[in-house]
Amino acid sequence: MKHFLLATALALLPGLALAEGPCCATGDLGLIVERATGSALVVDRSDHAAIGRVEGLGDMSHASMTYSPDEHYAYVFGRDGGLTKIDMLTQKIVARTIQAGNSIGGAISDDGELVAVSNYTPGGVKVFDAETLELVADVPADGKTIGLADLPGRRFIWTVWDTGEAFLGDFSGPEPMITNLGVVGKNPFDAVVTDDAHTYLIGLFGEKGVTAIDLWQTPPAPQRFLENYGKDHEDMPVYKMPHLQGWAFTEGQFVLPAVGQYALLWVDRETLEETGRTEMHGQPVFVISQPASPYVWVNFATPRNGVVQVVDSRTHEIVKTLEPGKAVLHMEFAPRGAEVWVSVRDEDKIVVYDTRSFEKKAEIPAQAPSGIFFTARAHQPGL
Amino acid sequence: MKHFLLATALALLPGLALAEGPCCATGDLGLIVERATGSALVVDRSDHAAIGRVEGLGDMSHASMTYSPDEHYAYVFGRDGGLTKIDMLTQKIVARTIQAGNSIGGAISDDGELVAVSNYTPGGVKVFDAETLELVADVPADGKTIGLADLPGRRFIWTVWDTGEAFLGDFSGPEPMITNLGVVGKNPFDAVVTDDAHTYLIGLFGEKGVTAIDLWQTPPAPQRFLENYGKDHEDMPVYKMPHLQGWAFTEGQFVLPAVGQYALLWVDRETLEETGRTEMHGQPVFVISQPASPYVWVNFATPRNGVVQVVDSRTHEIVKTLEPGKAVLHMEFAPRGAEVWVSVRDEDKIVVYDTRSFEKKAEIPAQAPSGIFFTARAHQPGL
Repeated sequence: MKHFLLATALALLPGLALAEGPCCATGDLGLIVERATGSALVVDRSDHAAIGRVEGLGDMSHASMTYSPDEHYAYVFGRDGGLTKIDMLTQKIVARTIQAGNSIGGAISDDGELVAVSNYTPGGVKVFDAETLELVADVPADGKTIGLADLPGRRFIWTVWDTGEAFLGDFSGPEPMITNLGVVGKNPFDAVVTDDAHTYLIGLFGEKGVTAIDLWQTPPAPQRFLENYGKDHEDMPVYKMPHLQGWAFTEGQFVLPAVGQYALLWVDRETLEETGRTEMHGQPVFVISQPASPYVWVNFATPRNGVVQVVDSRTHEIVKTLEPGKAVLHMEFAPRGAEVWVSVRDEDKIVVYDTRSFEKKAEIPAQAPSGIFFTARAHQPGL
Repeated sequence: MKHFLLATALALLPGLALAEGPCCATGDLGLIVERATGSALVVDRSDHAAIGRVEGLGDMSHASMTYSPDEHYAYVFGRDGGLTKIDMLTQKIVARTIQAGNSIGGAISDDGELVAVSNYTPGGVKVFDAETLELVADVPADGKTIGLADLPGRRFIWTVWDTGEAFLGDFSGPEPMITNLGVVGKNPFDAVVTDDAHTYLIGLFGEKGVTAIDLWQTPPAPQRFLENYGKDHEDMPVYKMPHLQGWAFTEGQFVLPAVGQYALLWVDRETLEETGRTEMHGQPVFVISQPASPYVWVNFATPRNGVVQVVDSRTHEIVKTLEPGKAVLHMEFAPRGAEVWVSVRDEDKIVVYDTRSFEKKAEIPAQAPSGIFFTARAHQPGL
């Protein structure tokens, strides 16, 4: 009744459009990238429902996003250099800028005041005021920047594909302080910060091995491990480079997709030694820990991308194989792990599974969905 | 302007009170227990501001709370058996029940549909519908129940002081399934689930030692460790039993307050062996990990409770001693670790520190504040 009265009152007011979405709590909302239509589907996690759609986001291939600390705004990083700020309450675009020719992800500072974007063309990192999207810092690079992530204390870290260097940017003072952390290897293709913000892990395309930087050291120094890891000439073709943001961190281990192979690699988090290997259904793309559990969930590169497998990190054994549908592109867990949302691009739907029973709880129509991003990411370092 | 119009429209509507708080995003809100006045202060974390107060909550000594998955509602567990549901958007009580004579905390199921309360008088666990607060299950116990926590899959775990038994309750089916996990020791006084929901740790009052239950085992079985841990006749008097919910889990270790002593104990998470000891300013009460960092923050029992100390979990050394004011009762971190809020009861204020510079960022007046609870807890298992 109150809702009805409120709606009526709002509708009667000139110049005040009725919000399309509920002006309500934002803890269980999310956005799902609809690449083909340049849009984002707004979802309510508790209701297993789509509650709106935001259009006009430009080239959303490989798009990602991050949220403000109050879960009020999403910052969407498009492939075309577009940076778009979406109000999750009104489901409207409140600011948008084409800040570069070609970008590949971004991050928000721990205090929520700065949004940073990593760019390919021209290479570098641009930092914006999170409220207005005004440019506050421009850090050029001698090449494409990849693996941008936030660190505590208004800092960001990133790596440059062409020069192989990693950089730490401190934006807590009046002037940015940029530190070159040295060469991490040849052609780093992606990088990720662990869930405790302790380690920056960098995958290499131009040579074998993985590089770790201990962020709690002063100064942080690159350390090479898994010297035999990476693309191999004898391997199968790499259909899709794995996303390092999907590297799972569980039970004292890192779990890595073996590039070009049908396998996961397990690495001891302390010693950085390989401790195991799991043969999988296909080339892993995302390897994501199910919260509050010993399990990781894995999806695969085309053409074997109709399957999701669940692996026990204690035994390294596959415990479940699911077939959600054609072209599974992404998975996102409810933050306490009760369910997982899976995007099935070529069947235009999201499938929601109960993580304990593996039963299908819901299906939600979406337009060629890819990345799924819940607002709970606002509270996690490095996301 | 829109806000003004909206406010006007709402004010004109009969029977529709204007919300006192902002009907807005809920990701950075919080409640602070004001014990003496039976109230809770509503705070905005980003603004470092109090934005309202909810009164009529009954006996708020030792009160705690949990949040719904959408961060819309808080469930407050009062010492007098009161269970109160607060709407964070309107800052109003929407439901309240006196469900027992004396209660000591509660938890919400991972799907947000059930709220469980652990009771002293009469002993047992009562489970309520999170929407209506209607009773849906009543599990009596042969004594006072302590250490209630949520586990994935609509499950809860708890322990009984009088009998020393731990119980696992599964509420995912039509009927509750209650499993007795066996005796964990004499007079368990509190218990906690680790951040990955892997281990249930139980502190004992009636004998020495700590008990761990591996929740990923089938069936989970109690395992004793630290056989010399606990209250000692030679020790100083115990001014306040430490809160186990404050046990920090960091760098592969558990960090425990040494009961009755001026010290922290460090225990290897895998082997459960003691690995170190840190002499402290007083008897530790809360020992809490700063997110995305190697640090734990510690407050102390009366009469040495005007101090907070910060310890590096790698070296086990104190790196900072702060003096926020008289009677520091609780600390809560911003979820990504940028700042910490400290309640200073006898100076009627909250002090906010930058965790990197240790500078004071803000002070917020509050009435004899104790527990601080941010809505981000909605997304964490076991909180």
